[in-house]
Amino acid sequence: MEFQKRTITCGELRPKDAGRTVILNGWVNARRDYGGVIFIDLRDRNGVTQCVVDSSATPLLAPSIKDVRNEWVVWVKGLVRMRENPNPNIPTGLIEIIAEDIGIINSADVTPFEIVDDLGTNEELRLEYRYLDLRRRVLQKNFEVRNTLYQITHQFFAEEGFTEVETPVLTKSTPEGARDYLVPSRVNKGRFYALPQSPQLFKQLLMVSGFDKYMQIVKCFRDEDLRADRQPEFTQIDVEMSFVDQEDIIALTERFIARVWHEVLDVKLTMPLRRISYEDAMNLYGSDKPDLRLSGEIVDVTASSATSGFSVFTNAVESGGVVKAFVASGSASFSRKQIDELTEHARTYGAKGMPWLKYSNGEITGSFAKAIDQSELQAIIKNVGAADGDLIVFAAGEWERSCIVLGALRQKIAIQNGEFERVADSYALCWVTEFPLLEYSDEEKRWVARHHPFTSPMSADVALLTTDPSRARAMAYDLVINGYEAAGGSIRIHKNEVQNEIFSLLGMSNDEAQTKFGFLLKALRYGAPPHGGIAFGFDRLVMVLVGTDNIRDVVAFPKTTSGLSLMDGCPTPVAQSQLDQLGIQVKASS
Amino acid sequence: MEFQKRTITCGELRPKDAGRTVILNGWVNARRDYGGVIFIDLRDRNGVTQCVVDSSATPLLAPSIKDVRNEWVVWVKGLVRMRENPNPNIPTGLIEIIAEDIGIINSADVTPFEIVDDLGTNEELRLEYRYLDLRRRVLQKNFEVRNTLYQITHQFFAEEGFTEVETPVLTKSTPEGARDYLVPSRVNKGRFYALPQSPQLFKQLLMVSGFDKYMQIVKCFRDEDLRADRQPEFTQIDVEMSFVDQEDIIALTERFIARVWHEVLDVKLTMPLRRISYEDAMNLYGSDKPDLRLSGEIVDVTASSATSGFSVFTNAVESGGVVKAFVASGSASFSRKQIDELTEHARTYGAKGMPWLKYSNGEITGSFAKAIDQSELQAIIKNVGAADGDLIVFAAGEWERSCIVLGALRQKIAIQNGEFERVADSYALCWVTEFPLLEYSDEEKRWVARHHPFTSPMSADVALLTTDPSRARAMAYDLVINGYEAAGGSIRIHKNEVQNEIFSLLGMSNDEAQTKFGFLLKALRYGAPPHGGIAFGFDRLVMVLVGTDNIRDVVAFPKTTSGLSLMDGCPTPVAQSQLDQLGIQVKASS
Repeated sequence: MEFQKRTITCGELRPKDAGRTVILNGWVNARRDYGGVIFIDLRDRNGVTQCVVDSSATPLLAPSIKDVRNEWVVWVKGLVRMRENPNPNIPTGLIEIIAEDIGIINSADVTPFEIVDDLGTNEELRLEYRYLDLRRRVLQKNFEVRNTLYQITHQFFAEEGFTEVETPVLTKSTPEGARDYLVPSRVNKGRFYALPQSPQLFKQLLMVSGFDKYMQIVKCFRDEDLRADRQPEFTQIDVEMSFVDQEDIIALTERFIARVWHEVLDVKLTMPLRRISYEDAMNLYGSDKPDLRLSGEIVDVTASSATSGFSVFTNAVESGGVVKAFVASGSASFSRKQIDELTEHARTYGAKGMPWLKYSNGEITGSFAKAIDQSELQAIIKNVGAADGDLIVFAAGEWERSCIVLGALRQKIAIQNGEFERVADSYALCWVTEFPLLEYSDEEKRWVARHHPFTSPMSADVALLTTDPSRARAMAYDLVINGYEAAGGSIRIHKNEVQNEIFSLLGMSNDEAQTKFGFLLKALRYGAPPHGGIAFGFDRLVMVLVGTDNIRDVVAFPKTTSGLSLMDGCPTPVAQSQLDQLGIQVKASS
Repeated sequence: MEFQKRTITCGELRPKDAGRTVILNGWVNARRDYGGVIFIDLRDRNGVTQCVVDSSATPLLAPSIKDVRNEWVVWVKGLVRMRENPNPNIPTGLIEIIAEDIGIINSADVTPFEIVDDLGTNEELRLEYRYLDLRRRVLQKNFEVRNTLYQITHQFFAEEGFTEVETPVLTKSTPEGARDYLVPSRVNKGRFYALPQSPQLFKQLLMVSGFDKYMQIVKCFRDEDLRADRQPEFTQIDVEMSFVDQEDIIALTERFIARVWHEVLDVKLTMPLRRISYEDAMNLYGSDKPDLRLSGEIVDVTASSATSGFSVFTNAVESGGVVKAFVASGSASFSRKQIDELTEHARTYGAKGMPWLKYSNGEITGSFAKAIDQSELQAIIKNVGAADGDLIVFAAGEWERSCIVLGALRQKIAIQNGEFERVADSYALCWVTEFPLLEYSDEEKRWVARHHPFTSPMSADVALLTTDPSRARAMAYDLVINGYEAAGGSIRIHKNEVQNEIFSLLGMSNDEAQTKFGFLLKALRYGAPPHGGIAFGFDRLVMVLVGTDNIRDVVAFPKTTSGLSLMDGCPTPVAQSQLDQLGIQVKASS
């Protein structure tokens, strides 16, 4: 187990070091055997250095390393010298080590896939051998960015006067929306802890305690059916401040994000960011997290559609709905197949169909072109602002549904016409504000909180809570980056009576409110300051910064979408004795 | 809900600010009513500022705040002026605000205990109202130190080239020693995740991946029967490095600790720290975490006891045991009651009794003074190095037990003679090294790993694994501060065959080793570098730095020793539907 410890890493040697004797430790990245001369590229996280074994100079060395193959761990001692054939593509490419001695530290089986950036291997195999997958430079870089983001975050919030406080992981189960992960208590049998979906209540209590400015980088947990970009556990930057309003939180966030973009990407963002109300975001982009990198805005043609010859439009208007259109610039060349894909996509989002027109070489064609006369077609083209060469897609019906359908089509068209590749290296950030406080759940037949039940209504809309709750807006705000919700927050309720009123609006009885949130209601009676905060999706931020759509590229040991860790096989069955101690049993599957 | 936002905090105003008009936000810390003049001390986390309401100048103001009592939240706008009666004890004591306007932001019920540092209230009530408890300055200061320690930690390890990596919280259950907290999987019914007792295996896998230097401040979980100084979830600074030996980890730790003591306490520690082998620590202090602040060392009198007239001593020697003594300097004045307490304490630690002698005014008395002749008594006194005025306590029998008994007595005597108060502000740090690799579990009838099964034996002792495992020492090291284990670590096994050998020594079958740790054994076959690390008890470090023995003083929302959160009542029963979804049920209690 003895080895000669490195005196320098594999990424640091430069021409100025020529003449030094050094020791390197690392992995064999490549071995090239030319009879009398063997080249070994030695790798560590810092880089790769070429080592040369020259049989004429060190005749015993080559035999001693005859078994050494890729991924073996070795130490190399030798003299740094200039290379005859420099490699200008790597920082150490001008020098090499002429080996005087080499020792084998550990051997390696042949790896199930090559340790290279550009890998065709399926993700399952990579996840099973995650420790080898993580040797790949392309992944290591992601974790360097992730590390940089940790450092900037800690520094920034410390400089802004925030106190880091850790909140519990073993908490009380108060499911609202997503399911909790539960942890059976051994000491208090029949009772359970829950893993926190967010430290929301704890950070509010810290404000009641007078902590003033709180932050934490913290793991949160949601037992949801996972989508490709979700993990059962995820990390957020959790922030809360007292004696502030929405402007303070937004300004703080903008300072933070500007610093991150500057330090990580060397990109100077223009601040303040554009703000879009929820209503405008839906009307213009059909989404509450619009991707502003993409071209085109949705236009409303409800007024002019009232007298249309196309019954789909007039029916929509007559039943109080809307008619909206999206002009896909230059996409008149889309094939029938592409149009069919778009129509299918619209249906996925709840549309009955997808009316469309093409304006090409002065001619207007499309799904309903023959149903109406030429003058109306001309008027529509003019109305939506289309130019020759454009494709126009329509949605007619209920407002929110129509917006969402066109928002989805805007995205799909961008995929089809390659716009995402063209905008890949750009960043479009904005705030979406003035969210509805509540939304009606048809499933639960009651109002549910859109953000969470602790969000304050806008002062101007408090009266609406009793008259028309659907129209009450929240003091809530989302930071949207490239179509992702990168952060979300709100000003919280700090008055006991307002919190009670909201609980009651959400259909919670007094008893239920006391059982679930009695400690919060009580805390609000002992001098709670006005407060608000925001939470950043840490994994999401890293994804945007490194430019990946796969969350598993930025999480060291991720789970699959079925919540499995392919490396160690968890979750696993456990010993009966463990369950007995916890006083629980697994139900026979029915 | 409108309020005038502060322009400055309650801790910042100084004489140079006289003449400025400012707005403060905060809690009423005290209200003193002198008829025409009302004094309000306004508090936030930064300090307290005196505000004056003068009825002659602002006649409408006093009536508007007539209901305002302690802990109400208000804003005060007014002019800063010099105080007529300055208070030199607080930084803002030279100025006051003459209030022009005051607004009530939130009211407060009368708090169940006063918000003062020196509080007689029982801890249960304080934990139930933790958000009020945390308003007390004495606790807030602890969290400021905790915050400082986070910052220093992140900075230090970043500067040393470490990468922060987050490891999973939902992990595989591989209980070794302490019990795991389990988390039932909904998607994979009948299977469970476990909360990590430490990220040990993940950090080793990161070394296999070539991360080189890893650190993380991370929550860990142990479902143990809690002691007063334990919490079910605790925080550690987790560190791992590749291509290093024990000296590298120790040197890194000493740089870190020196910086912490310097920056937090302004104390310059002398480095390198003293190192004591496990064997010496037991022989001299009767503990593997000796408190070096306390005076006195244990002395061995086995040799001279072989021919003693006291049968307890001779019997011990004859049966291969030891006779050891501890001289309590100046404690000959201990009362019979104190001696009885010591004897009882020795019994708690497994002694059959506690032989003792007093040397006072030239006379030797004690529990066995009459059993042996005066010349032997004189010889013993000389042998143990006692002076007139000293108390000497003895332990005779098996080596480890005798050491532990005297170590416990050394502590107990220090409590009795007030030594802990005298050393309260001092710090004694040392390394304990050369721990036994294994210890025999009488309960399980097999060897168990003393540190954990991934610890490397010392190179010199590898051969002992097959001949005499009990004597094999580990490459493990503990940092001990004031008698606490503040950090512990080891060099790990990086060879597949050695790891297999250790598993087999621990009585694990091949199948069992594969089921539990197959992924690690596999990883060790693909080029694992030599590596080792250390983990610091973060809560423990903060406790030492702020000088408390109560872990709940440094954890924001702690649990009781029965694992309860008195604030929100968790753990709680959960809805049957939640259990149904998880496919588990609570067993009827038998």
